[in-house]
Amino acid sequence: MGPGPTNLSPEVIETFSRPLLGHLDPLFLEILDDTCEKLREIMKTESPLTLPISATGSGAMEALITNLVNENDVVAVGINGAFGERASEMFKRRGAKVFEYRVAWGEPLDMEELAAIARDQSAKIIWAVHGETSTGVKNDIETLGRMKNESLLIADCVTSLGGVKVEMDQWGIDALLSGSQKCLSTPPGLSLVSINARCMEHLVERPASWYFDLNLVADYVLKGGPRRYHHTAPTSMIVALNEGLRLILAEGLEQVIQRHLRASLLLARELQSRDISLFVDERFRLEPLTTVYIPQKFIENEAQIRKVLLEEFRIEIGGGLGPLQGKVWRIGLMGYNAGEESVGRLMEALDKVLV
Amino acid sequence: MGPGPTNLSPEVIETFSRPLLGHLDPLFLEILDDTCEKLREIMKTESPLTLPISATGSGAMEALITNLVNENDVVAVGINGAFGERASEMFKRRGAKVFEYRVAWGEPLDMEELAAIARDQSAKIIWAVHGETSTGVKNDIETLGRMKNESLLIADCVTSLGGVKVEMDQWGIDALLSGSQKCLSTPPGLSLVSINARCMEHLVERPASWYFDLNLVADYVLKGGPRRYHHTAPTSMIVALNEGLRLILAEGLEQVIQRHLRASLLLARELQSRDISLFVDERFRLEPLTTVYIPQKFIENEAQIRKVLLEEFRIEIGGGLGPLQGKVWRIGLMGYNAGEESVGRLMEALDKVLV
Repeated sequence: MGPGPTNLSPEVIETFSRPLLGHLDPLFLEILDDTCEKLREIMKTESPLTLPISATGSGAMEALITNLVNENDVVAVGINGAFGERASEMFKRRGAKVFEYRVAWGEPLDMEELAAIARDQSAKIIWAVHGETSTGVKNDIETLGRMKNESLLIADCVTSLGGVKVEMDQWGIDALLSGSQKCLSTPPGLSLVSINARCMEHLVERPASWYFDLNLVADYVLKGGPRRYHHTAPTSMIVALNEGLRLILAEGLEQVIQRHLRASLLLARELQSRDISLFVDERFRLEPLTTVYIPQKFIENEAQIRKVLLEEFRIEIGGGLGPLQGKVWRIGLMGYNAGEESVGRLMEALDKVLV
Repeated sequence: MGPGPTNLSPEVIETFSRPLLGHLDPLFLEILDDTCEKLREIMKTESPLTLPISATGSGAMEALITNLVNENDVVAVGINGAFGERASEMFKRRGAKVFEYRVAWGEPLDMEELAAIARDQSAKIIWAVHGETSTGVKNDIETLGRMKNESLLIADCVTSLGGVKVEMDQWGIDALLSGSQKCLSTPPGLSLVSINARCMEHLVERPASWYFDLNLVADYVLKGGPRRYHHTAPTSMIVALNEGLRLILAEGLEQVIQRHLRASLLLARELQSRDISLFVDERFRLEPLTTVYIPQKFIENEAQIRKVLLEEFRIEIGGGLGPLQGKVWRIGLMGYNAGEESVGRLMEALDKVLV
């Protein structure tokens, strides 16, 4: 119940007991095709270039940046937490001219201001995080999509996809990235990207990174392509991802999102009834990840409290990152864990520990 | 029984049924420390910077290149197969001045010639593949280590580590990379690197890649360091890797290598007794991966034969890559599969299919 990775469902765990498939085995390629198709369904997109990346979410960030940015390209980055900062750093290393729009950690991005910067600088790309895992803030990507003008909108949906509403095509997201280990409830180590047709026109022909070269990756991954070997796909991880996606679609994406919402509201109520204050205003709260102010009397030994929760109750919650270290806890209710039972278990434990 | 991934042992599979650990869980960090220690044992090195990389073997190649090469650095690359080619391409994308030494696919690198090029060009780095997965040739890294002069020697040990003798420190390898899915018999998706103290002095301070920035990765991974969060480690994959390494050390590294040798010799005898010729001279043969000429009468429908092997006998063997496509098959005897039983099963199947 930290900020991810989250627990796996038994069905996902079971996939690892199946014989390992080769990366060119026709059965695996079928599962890979089906995975890409299911990703499109969950991202709500028709983008042809929708696929898993053999690295974690930060690898997917880098894959998009290395494939879409040439030196001196102008980029506007919204920063209200660690993952906006990370994107900005990656753009700078890539040689882009980065215009940063910053608001305090815990506040949402004002999309009018971010869009104005992008417009004034004629930015090729606007980058914003949908669910800021470092703060628990949900940024309003839908509004940003309406205001992006000619820029390409890249949205980091690592802690939102499969847990809150994400509508890639309808919102005008041109490139989207996510991770396996949050609301999809599959093991950490894989990530996902989708790039729409407009964005594909901007793909760098021979990016500095060979490993993340999406043209080469797509030649192997995408159905109907040459299926040319690029690197050895993490087959068992992709089979697990496929099962995680199947479970979401079987339950119904809308139902899954509602379940995340209900769990999050219940958690908020339970915490507030114990005089634990929530860090983020409810209008901008990211349902899968709730940040709370550490109660004053426990601030000094907050790490010890998390240790006891983990060791005695087998519940992991996250500490704060960066400026929030020692100030907040981060409680995840993602995927398999997004339910009343998790909230109940945590409350029972907190009632014993916070005394 | 293709060129990897290979089958997992039951003990490795079992690890996936354990509860998923968080990447900052003290229990996981203990396993991570133990994994780095076991990697040192298997690589035969004291290098402090020895760790898993959250990407496949090609990701580890890129991690080393992005961390060790500045623009215009001079590099000598030995090329006798697809993975030497790949390294050269990665160096070029990084902006290095690459001097290629090529020999025919199926032949070993002449280390005197490669070392002479490096010396003549005052190369900062010499790159050579130990086990060329595309051809089944084993290059003589030990000899190259004696001849490297002032250059840093980087060895790609993806298809050798845990299957044939690799002595990082004694051979003078300055940086080594390997993958999880070959002789270590753990799932594809992870890779391993080790960098010695001499090589660490050349680490680029702020490499173009944030994801593969080894200084940042090490700050999280290495024992005694700040354990600063970098990216979400693929915890279940690392636990599986740890178990794979444990099994090798429990059996005894030397015994495991001997088992690979015996299996490979048996396979060679069995194939030759059926008039199937081996592609690589026995002096340079890579034990974990045997390449054979496809018998003349089956060349036209070689893909069909591999399909029948896979579908009816559940045995996967690999086709040829690049210039060897349609000419050779690649048969892996790696890790868990490196034994008489695998050879027997394959021969039984071949006797039915090759008629």
